[in-house]
Amino acid sequence: MHSKGGKNMISKEDLLTKAGKPAEDALRLHPFYRGKIQILPRCCVRSLDDFAIWYTPGVAEPCKVIKQNKEVVYEYTSKWNSVAVVSDGTRVLGLGDIGPEAAMPVMEGKALLFKYLGGIDAVPICLDTKDPEEIIRTVKILQPSFGGINLEDIAQPKCFTILERLRQEMEIPVWHDDQQGTAAVTLAGVINALKLVGKEIDKVKVAMIGAGAANICIARILMAAGVTPGNIIMTDSKGILNPDRIELKGTHPEKWEICEKTNAAGTAGGISEAMRGADIVIALSTPGPNVLQKEWIQTMADDAVVFACANPVPEIWPWEAKEAGARIVATGRSDFPNQINNSLGFPAIFRGALDVRAKTITDEMCIAAAQELARYAEDNAVRRLFDSHYG
Amino acid sequence: MHSKGGKNMISKEDLLTKAGKPAEDALRLHPFYRGKIQILPRCCVRSLDDFAIWYTPGVAEPCKVIKQNKEVVYEYTSKWNSVAVVSDGTRVLGLGDIGPEAAMPVMEGKALLFKYLGGIDAVPICLDTKDPEEIIRTVKILQPSFGGINLEDIAQPKCFTILERLRQEMEIPVWHDDQQGTAAVTLAGVINALKLVGKEIDKVKVAMIGAGAANICIARILMAAGVTPGNIIMTDSKGILNPDRIELKGTHPEKWEICEKTNAAGTAGGISEAMRGADIVIALSTPGPNVLQKEWIQTMADDAVVFACANPVPEIWPWEAKEAGARIVATGRSDFPNQINNSLGFPAIFRGALDVRAKTITDEMCIAAAQELARYAEDNAVRRLFDSHYG
Repeated sequence: MHSKGGKNMISKEDLLTKAGKPAEDALRLHPFYRGKIQILPRCCVRSLDDFAIWYTPGVAEPCKVIKQNKEVVYEYTSKWNSVAVVSDGTRVLGLGDIGPEAAMPVMEGKALLFKYLGGIDAVPICLDTKDPEEIIRTVKILQPSFGGINLEDIAQPKCFTILERLRQEMEIPVWHDDQQGTAAVTLAGVINALKLVGKEIDKVKVAMIGAGAANICIARILMAAGVTPGNIIMTDSKGILNPDRIELKGTHPEKWEICEKTNAAGTAGGISEAMRGADIVIALSTPGPNVLQKEWIQTMADDAVVFACANPVPEIWPWEAKEAGARIVATGRSDFPNQINNSLGFPAIFRGALDVRAKTITDEMCIAAAQELARYAEDNAVRRLFDSHYG
Repeated sequence: MHSKGGKNMISKEDLLTKAGKPAEDALRLHPFYRGKIQILPRCCVRSLDDFAIWYTPGVAEPCKVIKQNKEVVYEYTSKWNSVAVVSDGTRVLGLGDIGPEAAMPVMEGKALLFKYLGGIDAVPICLDTKDPEEIIRTVKILQPSFGGINLEDIAQPKCFTILERLRQEMEIPVWHDDQQGTAAVTLAGVINALKLVGKEIDKVKVAMIGAGAANICIARILMAAGVTPGNIIMTDSKGILNPDRIELKGTHPEKWEICEKTNAAGTAGGISEAMRGADIVIALSTPGPNVLQKEWIQTMADDAVVFACANPVPEIWPWEAKEAGARIVATGRSDFPNQINNSLGFPAIFRGALDVRAKTITDEMCIAAAQELARYAEDNAVRRLFDSHYG
């Protein structure tokens, strides 16, 4: 996924043109196809007679077997390979609370990615409630039909409680892609960026712009993967998180934990102060393009790494970050080079979780996936370099 | 679907052999395929680059359009063609309360039929609750993703309340196949059987064996379609329903309504008394094969019509009913002649309801579907007869 300058570099003009094209195509092609996914047979249907096997009377036999032993449902039905993609539509892409109907195109796209990249049958389930308790109860009630749950685009802070409660109370793996998925692929990007700039993970200073579900989970995973907690500085819309932000103690325990653990220097201020001297900036905040400014990137450490991951418009255009001196720039978009996008992670992570019938997906599993993804991207980069020389 | 003796007649030995074969095949093939349905793309995916259209950044545009006008979700997503097949597993086939996991093979088979016969994308949703209020709330919360709801295999009497509440409170059509679906196809069978025996619908006496959700709904639809209410006699496990069954008034309002409306002669007793002199017996009760006895069929009117619809084993084997003198015999099985099976109804009824974006499915729509189905079956029977003479 890394395209590091040279002959693969896309020009600024190309990027701007490409940025408008998918939007145009999407508006034209969504009503043309009227949906991105459909249900088709997995089994062989030779004629209507075969419904005596798949439906009455034959189907009664598999039912009886499962009744005797519930676990057999994984062998006799598609539960083993099914994931519900569940959203309440309260934080969709960078668009905010657009409601469950308007969230459907994203959840269908997600289901398409699940199949295309993971071979998984994912069903979009957009919920007509915003109440955390109702979301929890509904998802638990859906458990018999699915082998896993992918929560998606649910606003914080309720998404933390919903994920934690469901992880504890369900027997199938529950995953919030905006937390764990983003954390796994971002860590993979950090691992490879540090190889390229030759820095050690426990020494780097990391500025995290935005204190949404994604960045809070990324911070947790980065610390578990070796980043020194005190070297992280995170900002939210009110500025840098530090122990002076005492109001967060009661209102937002997840942010308060960040205040307590990170920012050993006690830095205060805004994004510009957070970025000064940072080796890496990880921005998952408001869609840009002017959230990160060129002059702030100029104040970062040498060989600066910039991840500007807001969708659909990154916090700074990649060419502007490069012009300001960033060594490595990544975004969340599939049409720009160096994509840090969840689709690099969740399909294969779920594939593995379903295949071993994991009951949950731990932070350790996320870190292992990130390391493997980093290794895979590096191997491919080396192979492409080899091909370009000798191919 | 009518195979009326002659060269199409299947021998008793054939039937017995065939009855065992689907069960055997089902046990072998369910774990071979591990599920009957899967999710596949509906749209074109030429390469990974197309995810810039179907996912970020392009997908944001359709989301914004739907946010402006919720109705557009029918044009931009697969909602227009999606049905949730919802069960709590409390009354599956003739197997009773086998639980939501054990209900999965049936719901997947149903989804397969939805696609095969109606072109509809149906998703099996087996619920981990038996509480009517929780079922109602869960189904309502699922509304944004689906164009219709097919309730399936939910025990009575709660199924009546669940259906009625959801029909009133949801904006998409809600259908309980065990009620309306069974009623529509049974009425179609009655219409054609009466043509063959040359009797008038308002004159025939109908014995209905079993007072489950299906027979109670069939009685309502039969009366709406012209059967004289007083000419119907229904039995439950305690015998014939009549006004002496006063205890039903409080415990089971739907059965009490039958007590009041039907059985003008005030007949009491059990199945044998209900069947004496009847033109038609409609049995949807406990799987047989000895629920209906040969000597009771001998007491029916001339040209007796016997619908023995329990699954997977009918209340009397078709050849036994024939031996006892029945003129027309039908069952619910796809491997026997004269199938009265819901799959004749729900796929096309839902196809129509989705295509016109109906907000509900009324009794009048069920009757219209039954008349059309009867006409279609008759046309095909005439065509087959013609072919066998001149083909």
